[in-house]
Amino acid sequence: MPGARFDRVWLNARLATMDGPPGDPLGAIEDGALAARDGRIAWLGRRADLPGPAAQTTDCRGAWILPGLIDCHTHLVFAGDRAAEFERRLAGASYEEIAKAGGGILATVRATREAEEDRLLRAAEPRLRALMAEGVTTVEIKSGYGLDLATELRQLRVARRLAAEEPVSVATTLLAAHATPPEYAGRRADYAAHVAREIVPAAAASGLADAVDAFLDSAIAFTAEETAQVLDAARAHGLPVKLHADQLRDDGGAALAARHGALSADHLEYASPEGLAAMARAGTVGVLLPGAFHFLGERRRPDIAAMRAAGLRLAVATDMNPGSSPALSLLLMLNLACTLFRLTVAEALLGVTRHAAAALGLDDRGRLAPGLRCDLALYRIGRPAELCYWIGGNPCVGRVVGGR
Amino acid sequence: MPGARFDRVWLNARLATMDGPPGDPLGAIEDGALAARDGRIAWLGRRADLPGPAAQTTDCRGAWILPGLIDCHTHLVFAGDRAAEFERRLAGASYEEIAKAGGGILATVRATREAEEDRLLRAAEPRLRALMAEGVTTVEIKSGYGLDLATELRQLRVARRLAAEEPVSVATTLLAAHATPPEYAGRRADYAAHVAREIVPAAAASGLADAVDAFLDSAIAFTAEETAQVLDAARAHGLPVKLHADQLRDDGGAALAARHGALSADHLEYASPEGLAAMARAGTVGVLLPGAFHFLGERRRPDIAAMRAAGLRLAVATDMNPGSSPALSLLLMLNLACTLFRLTVAEALLGVTRHAAAALGLDDRGRLAPGLRCDLALYRIGRPAELCYWIGGNPCVGRVVGGR
Ligand SMILES: [Zn+2]
Ligand SMILES: [Zn+2]
Repeated sequence: MPGARFDRVWLNARLATMDGPPGDPLGAIEDGALAARDGRIAWLGRRADLPGPAAQTTDCRGAWILPGLIDCHTHLVFAGDRAAEFERRLAGASYEEIAKAGGGILATVRATREAEEDRLLRAAEPRLRALMAEGVTTVEIKSGYGLDLATELRQLRVARRLAAEEPVSVATTLLAAHATPPEYAGRRADYAAHVAREIVPAAAASGLADAVDAFLDSAIAFTAEETAQVLDAARAHGLPVKLHADQLRDDGGAALAARHGALSADHLEYASPEGLAAMARAGTVGVLLPGAFHFLGERRRPDIAAMRAAGLRLAVATDMNPGSSPALSLLLMLNLACTLFRLTVAEALLGVTRHAAAALGLDDRGRLAPGLRCDLALYRIGRPAELCYWIGGNPCVGRVVGGR
Repeated sequence: MPGARFDRVWLNARLATMDGPPGDPLGAIEDGALAARDGRIAWLGRRADLPGPAAQTTDCRGAWILPGLIDCHTHLVFAGDRAAEFERRLAGASYEEIAKAGGGILATVRATREAEEDRLLRAAEPRLRALMAEGVTTVEIKSGYGLDLATELRQLRVARRLAAEEPVSVATTLLAAHATPPEYAGRRADYAAHVAREIVPAAAASGLADAVDAFLDSAIAFTAEETAQVLDAARAHGLPVKLHADQLRDDGGAALAARHGALSADHLEYASPEGLAAMARAGTVGVLLPGAFHFLGERRRPDIAAMRAAGLRLAVATDMNPGSSPALSLLLMLNLACTLFRLTVAEALLGVTRHAAAALGLDDRGRLAPGLRCDLALYRIGRPAELCYWIGGNPCVGRVVGGR
């Protein structure tokens, strides 16, 4: 339509803008319309108020429109899976027996190092598509199964290729400080120093990493000192940082993330109220990962009351990974966040939209507002709470990325 | 192909027959083939041994074939949902406040009574299709949201119509003894007697019920005596029985189900070892419902060790219902059964095939064996354990019902 004011308009929709005031975070608009131009949201409001025509009109037939969902914490590029290990553990094998049989994270590292780039890509595609099918339009993908420069960069390259091949945005994160590789066995500190001095600078120079993450766990990953070294290196090279923090014990990770001005600290089951308050002051988002909590059979829940008291922004993500969270559904994480951690529906939905965007440092998405990217997810549901209520099933009936 | 020995053959498949000896319950056949004639499995084995040609050949390209999955416990015909109630509860409303606001099971009863048959059918269809999409070929559907003869029969009629309209088998179960309807408030025993004397005989005469179930719970449903009255009536009218037993407390439900020769007793979190042993001796299947355990945030797990010691056959089902298990994924129940109840992979998979068939009294399905119905589910996975391992996602790439 020549002279159309908008490229496309969606009518007869109910909008959950995720942009309301504190008392109404969903900011719902009934009988709504939304218009896009040049890939951005150009207008939204009540249908009756829609100004001007559009080149293309879509009747949503009462569907709910949310900002496209954001999965802000995944490790979805890897080779192999750990289903056989899962089977053996259920049959009674101990962790020691599984490690002796070549299991655990180093099994994934071995398989990922051996995999050509194209094979890694093909393995990741169905996992990414499973997330996309539910309305996810932005995914964070971490490296961390290479633990050497070449393989870490290969993982990040695959993440970039996924974004080029599929209608989805990908934010990449270097997680070379995920575990100590076998060639550094017994020399964990040396590996951490190698990450800080060699891998982080090279990844920064490559342009393949949008951020840097590290796994702080004094018993099974890296100490606070080693972690801080990696985060300092990242910031020195201009990259924002994130942290796997306080998942299995309180290592002071929440406070350390805050001190480094991290975009997010993730897991947080054992984080102290003081650490959580420091995060809130620093603007660091708390990312909850109920899939790992569930799959590992953990008992200690994150201190949601302290998080609320601190005014901490909370995100919810899949932590999609083969060892501790083989989770291919972000909607299911909404259910787990509500049933296991007792988030409210509004908290959970903010966690996969507005606050997930903040956890990635992206201020151009996560809400429905003029000027933001036109990334949308359409659902055939009666109310947004259904996205948290159902266990399985997929009510997503449409998905828009950059206005298309 | 004139003179073809088989109607159809599936080649290049890996078969999990679920028909192996005790030490190898999956009975896997690598490089297998399976042939159908007249809707039944006519032959299966190693491809090299396949006798004679088929009119139609399907190359499975290495997919795993399992017997079509069986969800042996659902309540999927109902009107309304309870997402708003879920939302209010997470926001801090007490059960009393929700009941006062018209929530709880009676909200579903009210909505179901008001719904025309066609509306109930349309509401149930997407739920059934979500299960089918994962490879489910047989579903049990209970009534229990009518609590009066007309509505209970309407629910069962809808269940029969679903089977006529979709490529799926449906086993129907009358569950009029699910709760006490408002018009019998304070007269629970009278309602139980009404079910036994009026509703069960009428349902039996209608031919709409394949079995009769009751909810034994001395605090919130029916006593052992009331329940026994309903089960006795069912057997007097030639219908097999099932029981919701020992979910929230030990009411002796397992033993009562065994005494009545029930096909199954379901839930069983609080069942005693003696009751479980009585079930095993009576041939009653134990049906585990981890979706309800999860959604209700229960802590007491079923006594799997006692179940194993007794030699009890275990099934796993969704319990799909709007109040305590809004679960639309049987695969996810496999994951929950393994992670929450620590079933082995083999136990979980038997629970949705062979033992689920037994829980419905169906001896013509649930395994891959000559002479049984050719109901198949095809999965693009590396090993059957993946069906239990992944959380979300759907690897089902094919589905066959009665050879088609
Ligand atoms: Zn992670
Ligand atoms: Zn039930």
